[in-house]
Amino acid sequence: MAEQKKMVDAITSMDEDFARWYTDVVKKAELIDYSSVRGCMVIRPYGWAIWENIQKILDGMFKETGHENVAMPMFIPESLLQKEKDHVEGFAPEVAWVTHGGGEELSERLCVRPTSETLFCEHYAHIIKSYRDLPKLYNQWCSVCRWEKTTRPFLRSLEFYWQEGHTMHETREEAEAETRQQLDTYARLCEEYLAIPVLKGRKTDKEKFAGAEATYTIEAMMHDGKALQSGTSHFFGDGFARAFDIQYTGRDNKLAYPFQTSWGVSTRLIGAIIMTHGDNDGLVLPPAVAPIQVIVIPVAQHKPGVLDKAREITAQIGKFCRAKMDDSDNSPGWKFAQYEMKGVPLRLEIGPKDMEKNQCVLVRRDTREKIFVPLDQLEERIPQLLEELRQGLFQKALENRERRTWAAHSLDELKSIADQHNGFIKAMWCGDEACELKLKEEAGVTSRCMPDEQEQISDVCVCCGKPAKTMVVWGKAY
Amino acid sequence: MAEQKKMVDAITSMDEDFARWYTDVVKKAELIDYSSVRGCMVIRPYGWAIWENIQKILDGMFKETGHENVAMPMFIPESLLQKEKDHVEGFAPEVAWVTHGGGEELSERLCVRPTSETLFCEHYAHIIKSYRDLPKLYNQWCSVCRWEKTTRPFLRSLEFYWQEGHTMHETREEAEAETRQQLDTYARLCEEYLAIPVLKGRKTDKEKFAGAEATYTIEAMMHDGKALQSGTSHFFGDGFARAFDIQYTGRDNKLAYPFQTSWGVSTRLIGAIIMTHGDNDGLVLPPAVAPIQVIVIPVAQHKPGVLDKAREITAQIGKFCRAKMDDSDNSPGWKFAQYEMKGVPLRLEIGPKDMEKNQCVLVRRDTREKIFVPLDQLEERIPQLLEELRQGLFQKALENRERRTWAAHSLDELKSIADQHNGFIKAMWCGDEACELKLKEEAGVTSRCMPDEQEQISDVCVCCGKPAKTMVVWGKAY
Repeated sequence: MAEQKKMVDAITSMDEDFARWYTDVVKKAELIDYSSVRGCMVIRPYGWAIWENIQKILDGMFKETGHENVAMPMFIPESLLQKEKDHVEGFAPEVAWVTHGGGEELSERLCVRPTSETLFCEHYAHIIKSYRDLPKLYNQWCSVCRWEKTTRPFLRSLEFYWQEGHTMHETREEAEAETRQQLDTYARLCEEYLAIPVLKGRKTDKEKFAGAEATYTIEAMMHDGKALQSGTSHFFGDGFARAFDIQYTGRDNKLAYPFQTSWGVSTRLIGAIIMTHGDNDGLVLPPAVAPIQVIVIPVAQHKPGVLDKAREITAQIGKFCRAKMDDSDNSPGWKFAQYEMKGVPLRLEIGPKDMEKNQCVLVRRDTREKIFVPLDQLEERIPQLLEELRQGLFQKALENRERRTWAAHSLDELKSIADQHNGFIKAMWCGDEACELKLKEEAGVTSRCMPDEQEQISDVCVCCGKPAKTMVVWGKAY
Repeated sequence: MAEQKKMVDAITSMDEDFARWYTDVVKKAELIDYSSVRGCMVIRPYGWAIWENIQKILDGMFKETGHENVAMPMFIPESLLQKEKDHVEGFAPEVAWVTHGGGEELSERLCVRPTSETLFCEHYAHIIKSYRDLPKLYNQWCSVCRWEKTTRPFLRSLEFYWQEGHTMHETREEAEAETRQQLDTYARLCEEYLAIPVLKGRKTDKEKFAGAEATYTIEAMMHDGKALQSGTSHFFGDGFARAFDIQYTGRDNKLAYPFQTSWGVSTRLIGAIIMTHGDNDGLVLPPAVAPIQVIVIPVAQHKPGVLDKAREITAQIGKFCRAKMDDSDNSPGWKFAQYEMKGVPLRLEIGPKDMEKNQCVLVRRDTREKIFVPLDQLEERIPQLLEELRQGLFQKALENRERRTWAAHSLDELKSIADQHNGFIKAMWCGDEACELKLKEEAGVTSRCMPDEQEQISDVCVCCGKPAKTMVVWGKAY
């Protein structure tokens, strides 16, 4: 008991040290455990249940829009990885190589997939013969491996879980529309389900995916003002198709190369949830993905009838939300702290006094607001409160982002903002990579995206003063 | 069109060459594609949808019995794999080794997990401190890698998909009960959902899992009389716990080692479905896991109203079964063959004549029986027919097994049976591994299991004539 109490208490304040606060939360909320392989984590039941909920929502969205799930091998032969020049240059330095199998050295080494464009292309070359075979709208849920130098749970790890969609289309326009549609799907997931506001936009050439013609991104702002790239959608043109010799007979009876997209989100989203909504008491989970939406805590549970009533309520509300009762012999105070740490959106307290009045107490995780609710109104009030909480989380995150968004009209202004704050800095850009590099060097910021919603901050590039082509949002990023 | 027709026709007869028939079916039913990595397959949408349906059923059963899903790393450091002596001896020869990552040689090589006992144990050592932390009932869905010399899609591949449950318990009895419970869950999955009768029993020491005290198995018989080990459940005692130093403070305040189990089924079950129910026209899928349960085929679809009616029926029956309409411009005959190849349990034909009579035709995939059903009785008749089909498949498989099961009272008799037939041979055994090896050498059979349902075939070992301890079912296996 003393040890358990200590466990709940020992969390670093986020204002004192945000990075340590983060690490404390992922451990104390029992999301992960470290393994003996550097950068590989064990995702514990509570963490995995969040991912399963995200998967369910997203997989439903994918299937509604005609996508099908497949499973590709986890290995890519070196020669296959090398088929698309830009792609191999981008990924070869950070892959893991299998060199021996079954006690023998392999004649060709295999990399553990860092992403699966090459595998999908190899398969597509086998099955796409005619325009009748298009579009192909495939997705897979899997883990991939990138040999990162520094790692942090969920944000950057050697192995991570994600989905990767890979599609092939008859026309450039159709593939571009797919790229944007999937970005919109990701934005909807983040905003409507995870309560995380995101900026939609396009990456600069420097930041785009290895081998892509264009990369689109959703960028979220964390509580500390740093950006988190939360999902990307790539348009490949027919570059991979040419490299992999994927040709089909078109409606005009001529051979043609199909146009390709790929898009992915990962367990990084769990990191986004933690750093967007969490507070000094731990996690705060958006109801849509919370493994437990309502935790029922009997108060004075030794008193006659309390446990029975709590059990009855749990069964009752379990019909319309994910409810759990904790009837362990820990004190109510310990339980309160424990489920706050785990970010359970609503706490339901029921004790003898409440029973007399035929009511219970509902406590919101985010605002700590206590609401007395008659027992016969739970079916109406709980979904209402969960929705209010979701909106509250979104609003709070949006306000944080607005408070931490600036416009810079000169290099000095930009440097001064970046020096004092973490946040989004809107500034015009000429489109020249040299300016992008200079801003990174001198102000420590990278281009997050060229947002869909453009503003005319000024007419000239914030860096070189030449005519501006576009507004870029700059920032420090995870 | 000509090419498509050919595709449907070009399947080897199962009586002519069962192995080729199998390969033809997995390709022609679009379950898999080969990749450029030997023994690694692409599981295509239709194949993966079968696996997703199996996952949904099984995951529900696991959760009902209190199991939680987690995700362990895909890599195991060599030193961790070596901690349990029997385990490493069993698996080390068939693992793939990662020796380089991020452009550098690793100081310790990592194997791609062939199974995850060692990873679970490492994690359990971190989180199991008290009897209050027990039991731990964890499962994960993932792929694993075993460097097999010869491979066949679904049956034996370098990489395969499975679930692996790993549990820890306070007492030996509780762990043994868990081992048996999970075997029963697998048997229920096979018999009630996949319509595959299975023999439950225990493996001999020679055939048990590397590091286990006892391995239990479900053995199915394929159409050709060969056995397929379809799921296993292992009891480990406290062997791994000792090797990994997992100790907890018991109710008596003393340190103790917990007792462990693990259990798994894999995409091999798809192989079992194919080889148990398939026929010379292709797949036959049990309704519970069929991606499409009813395929709606409009007949004379150019006639007024036919397509609309077919669409209406598809929407109507889509509320209670997985239904799909094929309104492509292929001929009905081609479509019939195509969906027979894909094993869709029921075909629904609707044409102008049927519409006049306000009825449609339902055709069972297994018996080819044609049933005229009034349109207003579909909601009743389709679930009924799917259930009858399931029972029919089970019954047919059971009859095949019974027809191909023999009892042998002497080594000569056993050899003669094994020489003439594939099938299950019941025979008594003294418990001596030498006899087991001799039967393999002289009769080409292995012990499939010591079935739960024992019979006293004779009093002496079929091989050496010494007093018999148990009845073993012998056979040739995939």
